[in-house]
Amino acid sequence: MPIISDTELARRRREIMDAARVCFARHGFEGATVARLEEATGKTRGAIFHHFGDKESLFLAIVSEDAERQAEVVSQRGLVEVMRDMLHNPSDHDWFATRAEIIRKLRTDPDFEVRWREHQVVLDRAVRQRLESNEQMRGDVPVEVLQTYLETVLEGFITKLAAGEPAERLEAMLNVVEQSVRG
Amino acid sequence: MPIISDTELARRRREIMDAARVCFARHGFEGATVARLEEATGKTRGAIFHHFGDKESLFLAIVSEDAERQAEVVSQRGLVEVMRDMLHNPSDHDWFATRAEIIRKLRTDPDFEVRWREHQVVLDRAVRQRLESNEQMRGDVPVEVLQTYLETVLEGFITKLAAGEPAERLEAMLNVVEQSVRG
Repeated sequence: MPIISDTELARRRREIMDAARVCFARHGFEGATVARLEEATGKTRGAIFHHFGDKESLFLAIVSEDAERQAEVVSQRGLVEVMRDMLHNPSDHDWFATRAEIIRKLRTDPDFEVRWREHQVVLDRAVRQRLESNEQMRGDVPVEVLQTYLETVLEGFITKLAAGEPAERLEAMLNVVEQSVRG
Repeated sequence: MPIISDTELARRRREIMDAARVCFARHGFEGATVARLEEATGKTRGAIFHHFGDKESLFLAIVSEDAERQAEVVSQRGLVEVMRDMLHNPSDHDWFATRAEIIRKLRTDPDFEVRWREHQVVLDRAVRQRLESNEQMRGDVPVEVLQTYLETVLEGFITKLAAGEPAERLEAMLNVVEQSVRG
């Protein structure tokens, strides 16, 4: 058996994740069958699941990567900026449509819910820390409530984005949101 | 063939809609198969589709009824109050989970999208009118932007509700929303 370097392993994981992301975006979580994932990645199911265990883990690896990237933006510039970034990357909008499907899965599949929440922790924590440390935030509403507010807007924003709402309207709406969390 | 009174017809439609609502809430739009709708309503597919044409029309009849009821609340008390009502009717939360599934359908099924939008017109119009006529609203942001803002919050709120977010957090969050659209 040939020895494969860590760099090569990372490269293969990367390739699979990029292709799988497009496949999930196009077909949804359920619709992205193993056969479709094979076709999209150009790899056999054996190769895919060698790297990711199962389809759910592959999906959650992508979710996790998103959450980490978003957490970074949050700690520098806040959650509203994460939404502005989404607005400016239309190629991601199809991917966000999978989120709608996941909501039902979260309700009906407790194991998946536990795993999903684990992958979101990094983002939740970043939002919380940002709200606690940012002196521009209003002080008359508890931080948890502001967090729930911003997360609710994020969910709605993703839904609107996936539904094809015009970008300029969403952009103007984000200014209202930003204003409303500031002191 | 026996003559059936309008009252009797209305009663049968009512029965089918109530049972179908529970069935859609439990199984989702796709998951609520014709067989499951038969079981839930206690009627044959012939009887169901005599009243509603097809499954999509049955679903949209329920959506339409919701939109009309919500439009009434909006014109009296605003969209935030519609959300408060949702919060206080936990039995409806499962139904709202179907909304997530519908978002993907709206993107991928243009005919369905047209029909869906028709059923939402009454609500959109009520929100618009309320924002235009209510003197408590802030005047420094265009009405369309406030409308997009409130609709975005509504989408996020439905998602959070369906995902099991604690009611007291959502309640407190709604106060922030209400404040932020007022002058």
